[in-house]
Amino acid sequence: MLEELKQVVYEANMELPKYGLVTFTWGNVSAMDRESGYFVIKPSGVDYNQLKPEDMVVMDLNMNKIEGRYNPSSDTATHCELYKAFPQIGGIVHTHSSWASSWAQSGRGIPCYGTTHADYIYGEVPCVRNLTKEELEDYEANTGRLIVEHFQNRDIEAVPCVLCKNHGPFTWGKDAYEAVHNAVVLEEVAKMAACTEMINPRATEAPKELLDKHYYRKHGENAYYGQE
Amino acid sequence: MLEELKQVVYEANMELPKYGLVTFTWGNVSAMDRESGYFVIKPSGVDYNQLKPEDMVVMDLNMNKIEGRYNPSSDTATHCELYKAFPQIGGIVHTHSSWASSWAQSGRGIPCYGTTHADYIYGEVPCVRNLTKEELEDYEANTGRLIVEHFQNRDIEAVPCVLCKNHGPFTWGKDAYEAVHNAVVLEEVAKMAACTEMINPRATEAPKELLDKHYYRKHGENAYYGQE
Amino acid sequence: MLEELKQVVYEANMELPKYGLVTFTWGNVSAMDRESGYFVIKPSGVDYNQLKPEDMVVMDLNMNKIEGRYNPSSDTATHCELYKAFPQIGGIVHTHSSWASSWAQSGRGIPCYGTTHADYIYGEVPCVRNLTKEELEDYEANTGRLIVEHFQNRDIEAVPCVLCKNHGPFTWGKDAYEAVHNAVVLEEVAKMAACTEMINPRATEAPKELLDKHYYRKHGENAYYGQE
Amino acid sequence: MLEELKQVVYEANMELPKYGLVTFTWGNVSAMDRESGYFVIKPSGVDYNQLKPEDMVVMDLNMNKIEGRYNPSSDTATHCELYKAFPQIGGIVHTHSSWASSWAQSGRGIPCYGTTHADYIYGEVPCVRNLTKEELEDYEANTGRLIVEHFQNRDIEAVPCVLCKNHGPFTWGKDAYEAVHNAVVLEEVAKMAACTEMINPRATEAPKELLDKHYYRKHGENAYYGQE
Repeated sequence: MLEELKQVVYEANMELPKYGLVTFTWGNVSAMDRESGYFVIKPSGVDYNQLKPEDMVVMDLNMNKIEGRYNPSSDTATHCELYKAFPQIGGIVHTHSSWASSWAQSGRGIPCYGTTHADYIYGEVPCVRNLTKEELEDYEANTGRLIVEHFQNRDIEAVPCVLCKNHGPFTWGKDAYEAVHNAVVLEEVAKMAACTEMINPRATEAPKELLDKHYYRKHGENAYYGQE
Repeated sequence: MLEELKQVVYEANMELPKYGLVTFTWGNVSAMDRESGYFVIKPSGVDYNQLKPEDMVVMDLNMNKIEGRYNPSSDTATHCELYKAFPQIGGIVHTHSSWASSWAQSGRGIPCYGTTHADYIYGEVPCVRNLTKEELEDYEANTGRLIVEHFQNRDIEAVPCVLCKNHGPFTWGKDAYEAVHNAVVLEEVAKMAACTEMINPRATEAPKELLDKHYYRKHGENAYYGQE
Repeated sequence: MLEELKQVVYEANMELPKYGLVTFTWGNVSAMDRESGYFVIKPSGVDYNQLKPEDMVVMDLNMNKIEGRYNPSSDTATHCELYKAFPQIGGIVHTHSSWASSWAQSGRGIPCYGTTHADYIYGEVPCVRNLTKEELEDYEANTGRLIVEHFQNRDIEAVPCVLCKNHGPFTWGKDAYEAVHNAVVLEEVAKMAACTEMINPRATEAPKELLDKHYYRKHGENAYYGQE
Repeated sequence: MLEELKQVVYEANMELPKYGLVTFTWGNVSAMDRESGYFVIKPSGVDYNQLKPEDMVVMDLNMNKIEGRYNPSSDTATHCELYKAFPQIGGIVHTHSSWASSWAQSGRGIPCYGTTHADYIYGEVPCVRNLTKEELEDYEANTGRLIVEHFQNRDIEAVPCVLCKNHGPFTWGKDAYEAVHNAVVLEEVAKMAACTEMINPRATEAPKELLDKHYYRKHGENAYYGQE
């Protein structure tokens, strides 16, 4: 069932080590099939070199396992909350990539210092707070709920990523491919923002009009980047 | 038409990922054929692994597409302004390479801290200002005009690169090959300058006589580096 | 004798350059066979590309060489002290990996800034003091004794690594494989902790409840990470 | 003539890009044949992928080219001065490797923060001053003379490397192989020293007794590291 999507999710997961975003098994990609209401996600703690498309796990939005011989990723409940809240999202990625996780560990959002950032993310990458002791009892689901709360009145497509304090990043997109793409972008943007502050501790964010220019060069009806 | 130059520009573009200067499609190389008055540039947003020599786009200096099935790079107007203003330039590169872009994002020019820099670039790598809101309406062309203005009374061959604030670097040379070479040099120089200041926040620029020595060891009529 | 364990130790040693943890011969892995009371360790100063399984050296816990044509690693006495003191340990790794050694050189323990750290190491990675002039006379054994002293009343399985001031890290595990795994984790954690402080010099350790949550997600009887 | 040494010098030069120590042609290795009084060095500005053993240039200690169709490295006179002054030296390397050059650009010697450094280099890596305007007229030879002057009353075997201010490192050894080995060590030591200060700006040098211990573990008559 959902064999095509399993293949896609498998391939998207294999992109993470290829792009240097994961060490060992520290990452997971999922993708949603809105028609059936199921999503497909990587199994928990399985080595990337042993992963096969048929190992992917099929879940419904009530956290029931529909198919698969493995346990799903331990972060599955976070993915689930995001799919429930945001119908625009078709793929989600979680990693512990070095620079994005370092920003998360520092407890700071990533300021928008330039056009590399603005081409993909409109404004700061937010860093959401730690969960309370009580919230930690349902850790993964509450992580998802906290992200949902943060984006309640914001455009989740314009800012396709978030940092969880003392933890790491989540990114998303219309499909698994775009979510992985955004995970790569976020890591590069996180690295350059840290280097920017190292070079100039008083660096300031890029002017709003430049951010607008770059963002709308690639998004919206007047976009003129690429071939479409 | 211009098949040889298309091949050269294709190969020069493929050097960018090889040298680690681009992520995804974030870079472009062009080259000028002064005889015909046309230049050849990478298409916009096409994957490097799918790029072929025949995908290169031929443009004239009035920004008319002369040949090619794809849209040219979204930065084409910047390349065009530079070719119009500086007849010595035969190739141009734009990237978002990490260290050079971090300097651009920090809004600082790169001081000349040593001979690696001085072997290729005479003095500071300049960082030009943000465009105004009005100038942003014709973003790419005005980026080119700002660079042209900066180099009006300077030697564009002695300083074959520039940083655009909150954006990234442009480099150039007598041909596409030399422009790529300078993009690699700039990234390494940018990295070492940041590390130099990390090691010694009070580091000072190399003495002028050392810069002269190294620059003229490789450039001008008394050069004695290499085999010519 | 112990041919299987020699093969394991050989393979574990070969993982060190693969994961970028050693330059030249700067690292060694050993593993203990509790039944015979012998341990197997890499020979001293032999190139990784020339290493063969049969080159591994068999030692007893009184530092007698039981088998092998080569001298054992110069750090063998450190390994020996740890095996003697801690029956839970089945494998030990020593490297000069860049980031972990930089923390050791700085004389600081590595604060637990996030879940990547907490997934494997419960709390700070300790940095033990320099040996005194007298202790240096039996350098390698006393390095081991100092580590043993530090962990006397602590859980050596919950914190499977230590930094030796002005020197570098040791990691361990139930076998050679797990010890290498922990060496990779430590290097990544060391890198991210340094970057975290670079991004925010006032970064604070992750809240205890988050550390508990992540540690017990992977360890102990209520663990639910992975497939077991 | 000296075909064997040419092969050695060729191979040693090819190690530089392999270890990530050079970009383009920014490095050179030479080796001395004390019997004939000649040394062999890389030609100037020739691409590493086009280099062949027979391209190596044979020089005497009066800077006469004895054999070779190419010009020798532009740094040949520096190598020559070192061979003349120090009969113990059989191989020399010059690179612009990133971290060692960043220390050189910062104008600081590299403090000995740990045993990785002490295993190879006894105490600080010195950074020699800029040449004066007058000295720059005979730049390369005077660079060599300045290094010679610095080591006049020191042990050039115990400290097999130097930084030239605003320029980069030179390393040496009993042969080309050992000189390259020391260039790799220096780059790693330079990187870790910078990271050490980043982690702890008040880090102090390793205690003298630890440096002695590690240095004499590998050098002198009581050495016990390795297989000899």
